[in-house]
Amino acid sequence: MTEGWIAIAGLGPGDEMLVTPQVTAALDAASDIVGYIPYVARIAPRAGLTLHPSDNRVELDRAAHALDMAAAGKRVVVVSSGDPGVFAMAAALFEALETGPAHWRNLDIQVLPGITAMLAASARAGAPLGHDFCAINLSDNLKPWPLIEKRLRLAAEADFAMAFYNPRSKARPEGLARVLDVLREACGADRPILFARAVSTPQEELRIVSLGEARADMADMRTMVIVGSSLTRIIDRPTRPILYTPRSAV
Amino acid sequence: MTEGWIAIAGLGPGDEMLVTPQVTAALDAASDIVGYIPYVARIAPRAGLTLHPSDNRVELDRAAHALDMAAAGKRVVVVSSGDPGVFAMAAALFEALETGPAHWRNLDIQVLPGITAMLAASARAGAPLGHDFCAINLSDNLKPWPLIEKRLRLAAEADFAMAFYNPRSKARPEGLARVLDVLREACGADRPILFARAVSTPQEELRIVSLGEARADMADMRTMVIVGSSLTRIIDRPTRPILYTPRSAV
Repeated sequence: MTEGWIAIAGLGPGDEMLVTPQVTAALDAASDIVGYIPYVARIAPRAGLTLHPSDNRVELDRAAHALDMAAAGKRVVVVSSGDPGVFAMAAALFEALETGPAHWRNLDIQVLPGITAMLAASARAGAPLGHDFCAINLSDNLKPWPLIEKRLRLAAEADFAMAFYNPRSKARPEGLARVLDVLREACGADRPILFARAVSTPQEELRIVSLGEARADMADMRTMVIVGSSLTRIIDRPTRPILYTPRSAV
Repeated sequence: MTEGWIAIAGLGPGDEMLVTPQVTAALDAASDIVGYIPYVARIAPRAGLTLHPSDNRVELDRAAHALDMAAAGKRVVVVSSGDPGVFAMAAALFEALETGPAHWRNLDIQVLPGITAMLAASARAGAPLGHDFCAINLSDNLKPWPLIEKRLRLAAEADFAMAFYNPRSKARPEGLARVLDVLREACGADRPILFARAVSTPQEELRIVSLGEARADMADMRTMVIVGSSLTRIIDRPTRPILYTPRSAV
């Protein structure tokens, strides 16, 4: 009963060729898999493995369930898409750990990194995050709009490239339109922006436009949005263009 | 002679269990491997594979060499540690492509993402990048100090967690001390800071201190430095502490 453990594992953006061997080994050793329904659906059922899919917006309950099972001796993998440490389950699990029973702190807990969406999208487009950049979660339920707007304006002033997670949510569909308005004002209409949908899956679609052309309906819930810095540029090619940010700011 | 291609591949932070199957497949299919000496040293020699290790600070020459070989029909993998799109070879290769001969633009060029150092370090420490964050390259030869200082102050005002690549370089050893001075002024002495050295290798060392206690000699050229946001906190445990940033800013 003391052999339980938890691994919080990143499954990457979708393609199984982007799942690390470390994560695959943890999944092979697990007795229980916990996570949001579409992520658990990526795990092949097998004898001795129990799948516990749950809806989103129940991250803390899911985390407590995982911790309880590990305390009872189970070998638990909590699955996230992308990297578990970037706007995903690792922080939720530690929130539950911090406020939960003291004995949870004795558990063997590992975070297993994965290919996060912004780096998968960046790789497919070229290298838009090749110089200094920031990552901002636009999900509506975790911070107020004035804080998002403040961060956008400061990031533009710092001339960071910017990667946006969760650009469109059902609860606040107008959010991305406001973000694009602020970015046009702060960065100008010519700045390139990438909409990268369902990267690494058969549904993948990449679109590079200017901020002046960008519209909120170019993103859905599977889209990663990346805005370039003042130095980001496009190399035209016979096939598809390359979007990249040079290494040097001088 | 038209079968050549280039893959710019991320080898992750060091542990072979963190190399994606996609990168392994590209290495297996390659005829030529190009990269900085210690990264090429990670590739097992085999019949039919030519290794081209080169010194650092010759990224553009290396990129041109790789493009030339691909144009001549070779199957070339350019290796980076971590992720090739984060302060690594992808941007250098596109700089060479942009200014090089037009026929290079017909080449088959793919960027294959990897586990970048900040996410490997974050996973080992907990989830310090679990809310909005930025990534800044402190390497001395790519931007002037006033720009670094401006970005530090704006990132602190935006209350981003911050990940620093290349915190110490031989050419400017005093740089990190200046960075720490600015951060103490902008974020206060109590803010936690992580020094994560050689993550995922046998030499791995993690140290979490306050900015007030932080000293530049806690980092060397293999260290990733992460400074928390105002919300980042430490969970004490019988084994090692967990450093994490909650998901919500409200």
